[in-house]
Amino acid sequence: MTLQRPENRHQVALLRRLRDEGPRSRAELNDGVDLSRSKLAAEVDRLIELGLIEATGLAASRGGRRSTALALSSRTRLLCVDIGATSVDVALADAELNVLAHVREDVEVRLGPDVVIDRALDLARKLVADQPGTVLAGVGVGVPGPVNFDRGEPVSPPIMPGWNGYPVRERFATALGCPAIVDNDVNIMALGEKHAGIARRANDFLFVKIGTGIGCGVVIRGEVYRGVNGSAGDIGHIQVDDEGPVCTCGNFGCLEAHFGGAALRRDALAAARSGRSAFLADRLAQGVTLSAIDVGAAAEAGDPHATAMVREGGRVLGEVLAGLVSFFNPGLVVLGGGVSQLGHELLAQVRSVVYQRSLPLATGNLPIVLSELDDEAGVIGAARMISDQLYSTLPGSRS
Amino acid sequence: MTLQRPENRHQVALLRRLRDEGPRSRAELNDGVDLSRSKLAAEVDRLIELGLIEATGLAASRGGRRSTALALSSRTRLLCVDIGATSVDVALADAELNVLAHVREDVEVRLGPDVVIDRALDLARKLVADQPGTVLAGVGVGVPGPVNFDRGEPVSPPIMPGWNGYPVRERFATALGCPAIVDNDVNIMALGEKHAGIARRANDFLFVKIGTGIGCGVVIRGEVYRGVNGSAGDIGHIQVDDEGPVCTCGNFGCLEAHFGGAALRRDALAAARSGRSAFLADRLAQGVTLSAIDVGAAAEAGDPHATAMVREGGRVLGEVLAGLVSFFNPGLVVLGGGVSQLGHELLAQVRSVVYQRSLPLATGNLPIVLSELDDEAGVIGAARMISDQLYSTLPGSRS
Repeated sequence: MTLQRPENRHQVALLRRLRDEGPRSRAELNDGVDLSRSKLAAEVDRLIELGLIEATGLAASRGGRRSTALALSSRTRLLCVDIGATSVDVALADAELNVLAHVREDVEVRLGPDVVIDRALDLARKLVADQPGTVLAGVGVGVPGPVNFDRGEPVSPPIMPGWNGYPVRERFATALGCPAIVDNDVNIMALGEKHAGIARRANDFLFVKIGTGIGCGVVIRGEVYRGVNGSAGDIGHIQVDDEGPVCTCGNFGCLEAHFGGAALRRDALAAARSGRSAFLADRLAQGVTLSAIDVGAAAEAGDPHATAMVREGGRVLGEVLAGLVSFFNPGLVVLGGGVSQLGHELLAQVRSVVYQRSLPLATGNLPIVLSELDDEAGVIGAARMISDQLYSTLPGSRS
Repeated sequence: MTLQRPENRHQVALLRRLRDEGPRSRAELNDGVDLSRSKLAAEVDRLIELGLIEATGLAASRGGRRSTALALSSRTRLLCVDIGATSVDVALADAELNVLAHVREDVEVRLGPDVVIDRALDLARKLVADQPGTVLAGVGVGVPGPVNFDRGEPVSPPIMPGWNGYPVRERFATALGCPAIVDNDVNIMALGEKHAGIARRANDFLFVKIGTGIGCGVVIRGEVYRGVNGSAGDIGHIQVDDEGPVCTCGNFGCLEAHFGGAALRRDALAAARSGRSAFLADRLAQGVTLSAIDVGAAAEAGDPHATAMVREGGRVLGEVLAGLVSFFNPGLVVLGGGVSQLGHELLAQVRSVVYQRSLPLATGNLPIVLSELDDEAGVIGAARMISDQLYSTLPGSRS
């Protein structure tokens, strides 16, 4: 059983409004819609007929008689899959994008698509089986690499051996019998920030994920901008120093080779071994596998070398962002991903460089903030992405 | 007398099609429009009634009887004003954006808005007077600085003393009795490239103007992207070298302080005075005021120092563009403005840096080309910008 698609843009607008603003009476839906009362009533009736919305309980009174509220079908379920470098998150959301269940398992993306997708499908089927009487309407999938969005396939993803050109979307759609959509994980997280995070009221903003690598989600007029090949936001390989460390991409001095999870691990190990950081040397001696978390802990404990590492990372990231702020003039910059947990020392340094280096017109009202969603951003974004597709007219239909 | 506005999105689509594709018969207009034949006929009749289109002569036959062609009203005129640092261009176009007349006068923008706008209005009134029986439908104005697009006013424009917050749009609209629109000159040139230049088939592209300063027009889905404060594309002050020359903005090592017309003039003078360039020293001795044109001539004549100047300029510009290409993943980069006349040596250097520094996915099919429109880009873009506004529904109207 599949979900019906709305037939015209008025139905699309009504569905998205019920999703983003919650249940509404007919009278409330009439406000701010450019439809006559009778046409609105006809569209609402048609949406009920299609099974996309339902009358439910009573809406707040407006002084007259109490009327029933309209809400999105309570049987609709959306599956969210967020494939990371070393784990996969699977969640189930309702039509209003409330996350009803969320599980995470460790699995290495480099084991290849067959292993990882089978694992994700197992988890998915269990979550769905726990919700009898519901309809799985669609699945949104994020992967840690560039994606050809129209084909739903990864394109030369550096940390995903075996995934290049693999039909990820088709695999999910066939296995689950519903529409699927696949995008880069950073784009999906950006959409999660837009739907439920600190970017809720921003239309043009940047979401910078500082994980193992560094990527950027570019949101324009409320929608993810992907560029002509789906590689927009690939800022990890912008050069910050033409004599800098060699990067995995083969060039010198890329942002990612200076900062990000992998670079911090490398620098933390060097600082521990050389004894430049007593804190990190201690942790290493205790058998800890050093990571960005340890650098953050060291900096917080006042270790001068670790503090300098965070500041230097913030400086190079800030320089890249300063250029992007001048170019793109966003209304907001959100920092997320694991390394953003280096926290306020990192944020202070990024802000200082951007506010100093970009022109006042671009930074006058520009907040630079840390994400508050953490792990939820990916699954909420995946739900939002497939929801946007389901709540749109089919290509070629008249609207 | 003012132009009527279309009443719904179908009328908008018909008008824009007649503008961009030229006169069409009713049968031809029916192709590729998602309207029934009878609804299309009604919309066309209404556009004739509104005076926005007219039946004209005979369209090519399709085997049946010959039918009249429909065309945009032949009486419609659009005024194009392109205010530069040291000159103003004024042109008159018809509804299909053919430039019918084009005049240019030297006038320094730093003389202030009263002087410059009076001069532009004088020129405009003469052009309009030469076209009796026509209707001036609107005016598009470009200025060499950042603009608050919603208000139609320059915002802290560095090279336009006296223009900050000046009501440029209102001045033109009141004086000419028609709608006016004001934008940054680089955005307007980008739109000109989109309408009639090398970017005609590109939807997501960058237009880089290398004049006295350096700016970038950002086109997304066929429309100019301005950012939240109208400063998007302000790439002249991206830092390329943190020990570089002091910039007019107060920072160090900005792109503009390294390259662009003003920087080249400074470096050409130094090279002539020190004798490092024999060619430029000769020109200076002849009393020439050195500019980018002389550097280009010197490089073309084989002067090694001038060639090195062009290459170094291409390198720093290429480094900034490499970052923007990674971030924005455009389908095309167009270089225009006076300094782009340094020509193929510059282009070769920019290409070499961008193709080496950006990831293959972003550069695989990325042409980097020189503009072919030169001075026309600004006036055609101004006509296109006001035309897009006139051929849209009024805010709040039902469509």
